[in-house]
Amino acid sequence: MQKPLNINITIVGLGLIGGSYAMAFKEINNGHVWGIDLNKSTLKEAADMNIIEKGYSDLDARIPLKKSDVVIIAVYPKAAVRFVEENAANFKENAIITDVLGIKGKNINQIQNILLEKPVEFIGGHPMAGKESSGLSYASKSIFEGANYIITPTEKNSEEVINYIEKIVKNIGFKNISIVTPEKHDEIIAVTSQLPHVIAVSLMNMKNIDKNIKNFIGGSFRDESRVANINPELWSELFLSNKENLLSAVDEFQKSIDELKDALREEDSEKLKVMMKKASCKKGEIS
Amino acid sequence: MQKPLNINITIVGLGLIGGSYAMAFKEINNGHVWGIDLNKSTLKEAADMNIIEKGYSDLDARIPLKKSDVVIIAVYPKAAVRFVEENAANFKENAIITDVLGIKGKNINQIQNILLEKPVEFIGGHPMAGKESSGLSYASKSIFEGANYIITPTEKNSEEVINYIEKIVKNIGFKNISIVTPEKHDEIIAVTSQLPHVIAVSLMNMKNIDKNIKNFIGGSFRDESRVANINPELWSELFLSNKENLLSAVDEFQKSIDELKDALREEDSEKLKVMMKKASCKKGEIS
Repeated sequence: MQKPLNINITIVGLGLIGGSYAMAFKEINNGHVWGIDLNKSTLKEAADMNIIEKGYSDLDARIPLKKSDVVIIAVYPKAAVRFVEENAANFKENAIITDVLGIKGKNINQIQNILLEKPVEFIGGHPMAGKESSGLSYASKSIFEGANYIITPTEKNSEEVINYIEKIVKNIGFKNISIVTPEKHDEIIAVTSQLPHVIAVSLMNMKNIDKNIKNFIGGSFRDESRVANINPELWSELFLSNKENLLSAVDEFQKSIDELKDALREEDSEKLKVMMKKASCKKGEIS
Repeated sequence: MQKPLNINITIVGLGLIGGSYAMAFKEINNGHVWGIDLNKSTLKEAADMNIIEKGYSDLDARIPLKKSDVVIIAVYPKAAVRFVEENAANFKENAIITDVLGIKGKNINQIQNILLEKPVEFIGGHPMAGKESSGLSYASKSIFEGANYIITPTEKNSEEVINYIEKIVKNIGFKNISIVTPEKHDEIIAVTSQLPHVIAVSLMNMKNIDKNIKNFIGGSFRDESRVANINPELWSELFLSNKENLLSAVDEFQKSIDELKDALREEDSEKLKVMMKKASCKKGEIS
């Protein structure tokens, strides 16, 4: 079968997401797939796994970048901005650069401003895929299968590039592609992704929770605490970069809990049932 | 292979849990497995599935009860008490009667008091297994595989019966069997089972959540809202029967959220990281 892509791709940062991208693109691309990482042993691991053709340190980034049609930056927020700053002159003419960050507004602005005069186009992308474990050794292209993907164009982006990103991420398995502004993205993601991480961390950090409860938990507790196994460096940055939206989301969640608590305190069985029916119904609508 | 049990068992209530019990015991028991249910079509379905030998309506409950060594009551809390009340004279001499309820304190007291003068022994049991869908058609003996089971004896129970229950539930797949008082059970379960249900329902009922977020959710939101698809009749009873413990658990959870919110509001990156590390570590201890 003919591979659908024939481009040169560089993945910056070979962690869980970057590694999974490399894996996925290696399979559907006839052109080169290169990797850049700070960590030499990660580069060696990726080459050994045969998911990149060659790995480069940050210092040699210009070598693959000069020849890459698509660059995917899969590092933490601040590091992503720094990488673009340091390599602004190294990208190939007409290169499409994208990221995988869980927050968009501030970073996309910064990155697009850095690249303002350059003959390249940066467009934000957010793969709604992940695992509770981080690092290349957990990478797997299957995490993209059927997952949601969000593209966050600004007025600096062209229709052509938006469509191109949509096409290539569908090629590696993403299913529903949404297109929203970076600001709207951050507002929604505070509720649909960051809040669930706040919940899991807060649930585990309750004072009544310790190893003695191990034999008293069922599937509900297990599922709701899954992402408490969190990457603190990454997620503290993500939370802080989206502080206002996240605080609002948490407040709304607490209001919703308070309503249920009121019904419970008042022993209002009917009200409790109405709430449960509503939740079931809304859950059905998003499933 | 020889089947490890050779007793007559009656399952009262052939819903998700009762049906799964019937299925599991049918396979490891040489004796009879009978079912009692209010709903004739459920009885027919269970017989068609070949997980019970014969089904009986509530009115004929005495027929299988008279011959049953073990009776498992798998109906809602109030219905369980009513069933024992109506059938107090119908149990076989030396029968062991148990339940599957998610709350224990009040109900076990009531049931043991009803049976005070009878030559039978009632002992509370809680299989920490379930699904987000209810009803016989979702029953599956695999839900018990490796799951936790809690036995809640009182001073009215004998060592012999505690050990017997432990043995038979291990036979159908349960792994970690804990033995605690009904009061302790209710206190723990408020945190490890009821609170996760409060969280899922409250998350779905937030005003910012509607069907438009469908394409913006990832695994964390999906997992944490799973049990929002809840059985309102059952869970409103469970919540109300354990009101004080549940309110305390929710308060503790909200305190834990407030701490994270404070760190976020103060942009205290170090504090956030410490919280995340603590949560990861505690999650590791119960996994």
